[in-house]
Amino acid sequence: MSIAAKMAGFIESSSWIRKMFEEGARLKSIHGKDNVYDFSLGNPSLDPPGKFKRYLQSIVENEAPGVHAYMPNTGFAHVRKAVAEFIAREQGAALGEDDVIMTCGAAGGLNIILKAILDPDDEIITPAPYFVEYGFYADNHGGRLVPVKTKEDFNLDIGAIERGISAKTKAVLINSPNNPTGQVYPKASLEKLGDLLREKSKSIGRTIYLISDEPYRKIAYDGIDVPSVLTCYNNSLIATSYSKDLSIPGERIGYVAVCPEADEKPILLQGLALANRILGFVNSPALMQRVISGLQGVHVDIAEYARKRDLLCNGLSDFGYRFVRPAGAFYLFPQSPVADEVVFVQALQEERILAVPGSGFGAPGYFRLSYCVDDRTISDALPGFERAFKQFA
Amino acid sequence: MSIAAKMAGFIESSSWIRKMFEEGARLKSIHGKDNVYDFSLGNPSLDPPGKFKRYLQSIVENEAPGVHAYMPNTGFAHVRKAVAEFIAREQGAALGEDDVIMTCGAAGGLNIILKAILDPDDEIITPAPYFVEYGFYADNHGGRLVPVKTKEDFNLDIGAIERGISAKTKAVLINSPNNPTGQVYPKASLEKLGDLLREKSKSIGRTIYLISDEPYRKIAYDGIDVPSVLTCYNNSLIATSYSKDLSIPGERIGYVAVCPEADEKPILLQGLALANRILGFVNSPALMQRVISGLQGVHVDIAEYARKRDLLCNGLSDFGYRFVRPAGAFYLFPQSPVADEVVFVQALQEERILAVPGSGFGAPGYFRLSYCVDDRTISDALPGFERAFKQFA
Repeated sequence: MSIAAKMAGFIESSSWIRKMFEEGARLKSIHGKDNVYDFSLGNPSLDPPGKFKRYLQSIVENEAPGVHAYMPNTGFAHVRKAVAEFIAREQGAALGEDDVIMTCGAAGGLNIILKAILDPDDEIITPAPYFVEYGFYADNHGGRLVPVKTKEDFNLDIGAIERGISAKTKAVLINSPNNPTGQVYPKASLEKLGDLLREKSKSIGRTIYLISDEPYRKIAYDGIDVPSVLTCYNNSLIATSYSKDLSIPGERIGYVAVCPEADEKPILLQGLALANRILGFVNSPALMQRVISGLQGVHVDIAEYARKRDLLCNGLSDFGYRFVRPAGAFYLFPQSPVADEVVFVQALQEERILAVPGSGFGAPGYFRLSYCVDDRTISDALPGFERAFKQFA
Repeated sequence: MSIAAKMAGFIESSSWIRKMFEEGARLKSIHGKDNVYDFSLGNPSLDPPGKFKRYLQSIVENEAPGVHAYMPNTGFAHVRKAVAEFIAREQGAALGEDDVIMTCGAAGGLNIILKAILDPDDEIITPAPYFVEYGFYADNHGGRLVPVKTKEDFNLDIGAIERGISAKTKAVLINSPNNPTGQVYPKASLEKLGDLLREKSKSIGRTIYLISDEPYRKIAYDGIDVPSVLTCYNNSLIATSYSKDLSIPGERIGYVAVCPEADEKPILLQGLALANRILGFVNSPALMQRVISGLQGVHVDIAEYARKRDLLCNGLSDFGYRFVRPAGAFYLFPQSPVADEVVFVQALQEERILAVPGSGFGAPGYFRLSYCVDDRTISDALPGFERAFKQFA
């Protein structure tokens, strides 16, 4: 083998996912793209807000010299200032511009955090179900992902996290609003988690970080508040992006924010800046930094996603599907009516419906539906959802 | 220590560079920015070509739906096709769109290549002097950089490379036009290198890749041709960017191109796509992909850099400095008139001239000057260059 053995193994072990996607592509080629109901991807269906387009145009038209040049690896100072001020207002934590590092999306942000903090064989605890990429991100930097269980409603199980902590634990990685469950962790849970990490950091004699991956923060329904980790635990970091807020996931623009009261903050910030540079990100894309600096707090119309959620939830509920109603993000994570959810996902494929098995998220017996799709995709797919369910009911 | 021990070590060991930059910043704050002659950075002084601005504006004005959405991790198919067709015309290698992966600059490209191919403790040979980041990139993915010497004129020493090859060698990494020397490797050298790697791959029983980092390909002087690795060795890969061609280094747009005749090409391409995804790049920035697809072969006016090169070279030559006249890129790498080049770089600082010691490039006794600066910076600095040299002559 000429490529790395580990990478070849990753390719081999994910071949079932590739086969599923190939089957989806095959169905689309037979039946036409519009006659296959694709709930498998987290690609936002809404266009970017009008303000985004107008602001991008005005920046491009009034292009200042150096607008596309290198800047400090952490990003333009005025952009970091705008972001820090917005977080301070939104989350009640007194961030300064130096507490923010502009990144290539949340994925880039998570990688620079893990690069900065992981010693060999360090462990990262994450509540399952979890975003499948976390395992790769930990492994990239010599660490190991340790999934722990959540409660039946996918809420944090603080006892399970406590039992998961060892002398090798370097961080707990949470994602709220959650992909794939749509759960939003309440403030009381985050406060308990903060207390636990303070106590455990003390007993093992070094910092356990709390990393909050929150690209769906703005996508929360029914007036719910997404609580901030920054006010619950000082050694916390946020990794996030504008991918879902502004429907621009292809542009790779996001940031890492460090709690202003973090221990040993100067070397942590230096480590993050160095990681951004040496992992090859160098800096977050320059033009998009300038664009988002003027669009703090702007986001797509969340009511659109809420309507899609209701359309899908109400339909599936009527047929007898069991699930936790999502409080945020744009995913639904129902129980499979048959123990082996891959069998059920295949039954859905027979109905030209594409879904992702829960095994991919560390949660066999469930499947994920992304409802960031046209309303028509949802309504047209409902009869197929009903027929597939009836086969196993 | 709460951050990774290795990262803390990197920060500590690069503290002398930080001190140098701090000294530069101090000088600028005392004397004013325009009275400090900063030759330490590779940030292009030329504005992007007018065509770039016009094309960017037209794309932003006529924004198609999905222009900022996710696309395949390797990039938009029509963009990869435009790039492949251009490389095919420019370098005479029959690349198809699937042989190209759009990346976050050349730095992102090098990292996904190394992630895809490196097994633990694999070695990457690179001719010294070399771009300082290579050591970090190899280390990121569990590999080790093995610098080997070049000839006195900084040309490839094929014998030194041959002696450097071991059973752990996974790749040879070259950079032409070279940072920091400005050397362009002739076709005959690349052919000899190809012959060597073919022979050594056979004798050690697996592929040794040739990786060509070539962000300065378009910046070559005096009508010189920059030969292609693709026609000299089948297991070759190019990592490059539009940072210098178009003066847009902040935008992080580049690509990896794989030789169409590479062995086991399908799994290599899968490995590169997976690495792009799991390292957190996900994909190259969407808008800039579209922009560069319409600007193949467009670049800044190289005559401008040639004039700056001549201005600096002629001046330094008159004072007695010894150097190899650069055939490409925008760096000059003169010998220090005193063995410890850090002493000389400090003497230049006394003249308010900022340079980088060669030790940072694996070549003590030299120093690097970036001449991608205003002509006035060069002409105004010349008397200081003369005075500093005379101290040691």
